Amino acid sequence: RVDGDRLWQSLMEMAEIGPGVAGGNNRQTLTDADAEGRALFQRWCEAAGCEMGLDRMGNMFARREGTDPDALPVYVGSHLDTQPTGGKYDGVLGVLGGLEVVRTLNDLGVKTRHPIVVVNWTNEEGTRFAPAMLSSGVFIGQYETDWAYQRTDAAGKRFGEELERIGWKGEEEVGARKMHACFELHIEQGPILEAEGRDIGVVTHGQGQWWLQVTLTGRDAHTGSTPMAMRRDAGLGMARILERVNEIAMAAQPDAVGAAGHIDVYPNSRNVIPGRVVFTVDFRSPDREKLDGMKAALEADAPRIAQEMGLGCEIEVAGHFDPVTFDEGCVAAVRGAAERLGYSHMDIVSGAGHDACWINRVAPTAMVMCPCVEGLSHNEAEEITKDWARAGTDVLLHAVVETAGV
Amino acid sequence: RVDGDRLWQSLMEMAEIGPGVAGGNNRQTLTDADAEGRALFQRWCEAAGCEMGLDRMGNMFARREGTDPDALPVYVGSHLDTQPTGGKYDGVLGVLGGLEVVRTLNDLGVKTRHPIVVVNWTNEEGTRFAPAMLSSGVFIGQYETDWAYQRTDAAGKRFGEELERIGWKGEEEVGARKMHACFELHIEQGPILEAEGRDIGVVTHGQGQWWLQVTLTGRDAHTGSTPMAMRRDAGLGMARILERVNEIAMAAQPDAVGAAGHIDVYPNSRNVIPGRVVFTVDFRSPDREKLDGMKAALEADAPRIAQEMGLGCEIEVAGHFDPVTFDEGCVAAVRGAAERLGYSHMDIVSGAGHDACWINRVAPTAMVMCPCVEGLSHNEAEEITKDWARAGTDVLLHAVVETAGV
Ligand SMILES: NC(=O)NCCC(=O)O
Ligand SMILES: NC(=O)NCCC(=O)O
Repeated sequence: RVDGDRLWQSLMEMAEIGPGVAGGNNRQTLTDADAEGRALFQRWCEAAGCEMGLDRMGNMFARREGTDPDALPVYVGSHLDTQPTGGKYDGVLGVLGGLEVVRTLNDLGVKTRHPIVVVNWTNEEGTRFAPAMLSSGVFIGQYETDWAYQRTDAAGKRFGEELERIGWKGEEEVGARKMHACFELHIEQGPILEAEGRDIGVVTHGQGQWWLQVTLTGRDAHTGSTPMAMRRDAGLGMARILERVNEIAMAAQPDAVGAAGHIDVYPNSRNVIPGRVVFTVDFRSPDREKLDGMKAALEADAPRIAQEMGLGCEIEVAGHFDPVTFDEGCVAAVRGAAERLGYSHMDIVSGAGHDACWINRVAPTAMVMCPCVEGLSHNEAEEITKDWARAGTDVLLHAVVETAGV
Repeated sequence: RVDGDRLWQSLMEMAEIGPGVAGGNNRQTLTDADAEGRALFQRWCEAAGCEMGLDRMGNMFARREGTDPDALPVYVGSHLDTQPTGGKYDGVLGVLGGLEVVRTLNDLGVKTRHPIVVVNWTNEEGTRFAPAMLSSGVFIGQYETDWAYQRTDAAGKRFGEELERIGWKGEEEVGARKMHACFELHIEQGPILEAEGRDIGVVTHGQGQWWLQVTLTGRDAHTGSTPMAMRRDAGLGMARILERVNEIAMAAQPDAVGAAGHIDVYPNSRNVIPGRVVFTVDFRSPDREKLDGMKAALEADAPRIAQEMGLGCEIEVAGHFDPVTFDEGCVAAVRGAAERLGYSHMDIVSGAGHDACWINRVAPTAMVMCPCVEGLSHNEAEEITKDWARAGTDVLLHAVVETAGV
């Protein structure tokens, strides 16, 4: 069993870096706070006897040697970056849970056959640079490193330059590593486990996602002196399309969601009819047909709504992944671990995207989930209990040890 | 008659300060560019033999002496600040048209009985600091100077500190000056004069306005893992209220408008359901009952829409002025001047707010309007012809001279 107090202590220490304004965190990727969080993680890993690797995307790999020099490592980890108004556990639990696995094995003097690598993936959140899970996506060959370097944030800063600026750009070729298996522990970020009173979610599938960035082009004009009939109001067009997004998602119930989190209005002046609005629609479903159907519905309806209002409409894909089916063997290892340890558990579909969703393409992968209070995440008030964190990390430990062999 | 070429030349020179990105201007109030524009205006005024006064709101008053030491001045002017994506004429024509009146009188060696004061009012646009026409509002006692100093921009900077920073905070008590009369020349910013083929709009009335800042409070949550039924999506609430704003304005046709130019979404991350949206609704009408009716409709409907969605809703007045009836005598002076000069003209209601709308409360006031291409304003593509500018300034000259006496 892991040391729940030590784990909790590390979570709280990491949460001191990049504090938010309401008890959570703002440690967005490639900020100074991200650099500070990385440095702390590296110190902890080195103190636990691991050797740190760093690739050209800033992905961090802390390796604990195995007994078999030819065996590929078992990877565990998640991400240390947060949303601008994020919680203390989203991602962090998976990374520090991985570290706790290593610390526990050290305490017990257990040597595994396969090495264990604790990983911190860069820019999982996708809030500063779209798409989400960018660096695990490069790792598996979904994106090119150079394409990733060109992603820009809202201020126009490039991923590649920011990575260099914070001093965490490594030499290692991205995706050069081969994995024996991969496990990611994460908070559920949804309400199911808590509602069902289960300690552990055995993640069998992950929802797919479409991020569709819509640009509406109207005409800047005076809000007072421009007659209603002469307006080309991109703000009103956005309002109508958002209502349609909601209708599309509601029509695809129960297992689908849709909304826009990002909306930029130009020139954003109280007395100027918006001449341009850029917003990103986020559709998700574990059912590929439904997922693609929602995208198709928006691609049909948004341009029609825009045209009726005299607006231009462009839709660009800002992120996408297909629904995921995790590896049967790894899923069984997670379920078996929960069973053996006596934790209540259930199979569950991940509502959020995770680095594990990409890694699953190149290595046998599964995820462990623990509940979070009221299913709340991407909110500074995100909360879990120490017991939930410990139980999830216990299951991670056992699944990893079983897979890595002793 | 004024010198149309000289006027045009000055307009083009001023437009070089704070250039926009598409041929217009971004010379927002209390920016470095605003300071530069002020300095140029001051040099021009001093070269024209005027003495510059400056009050505690940064309002600039260039005085040309009259022959009667006891006579109160006739004021002419407008504003040099622009929208973030503004045109070259909105406001600027009124200030430099006033200067051209002085230059023409100098050329002709005409002395008026009443002094003439060319004024540049600070922060007419209200884009950086709400409300619009802030400093003319302080001048007439509508707002306190200290209240105005506390207005903040989107970056949290205060009006008072920014005014000091750019070096244009004067010593003069705001509103200490008494006026014999006041005239403001302005582009129409609407389509009527051009459509009707008239050179001059004789402005008899001004629309009233309500700026209502709406704050919707929902809950930040994950766009992927939060079930539709658990969402409190402030972005969707905003969409529904914007549709309602449009319905309210359409129901009040023909002489009413409504829209939102300013919308801020928090935390504005692609995968976070907006927990807060702040936006400003701009309702206008020349009919006070309609105007107040639109406000009342929003105040009734927005909280209801919000409540149905589990959202909090607060509505704050961010700006307001009642419909205006300009002074009969001053209006007659404008109409008579157009008549005498042989310019085609028509009575018109101003769709936009103007400093003259406030000044009308403390002194006999009227406005002269000239057409603008396609009625387009608050857009970098705002355009007028040299002939329109000259005709408007000719009418201004004659109305001013008649009122100031020779
Ligand atoms: N786990 C998580 O919140 N990932 C961010 C990417 C997503 O939007 O699903
Ligand atoms: N003239 C003008 O554009 N004034 C700005 C204030 C308003 O919104 O009417």
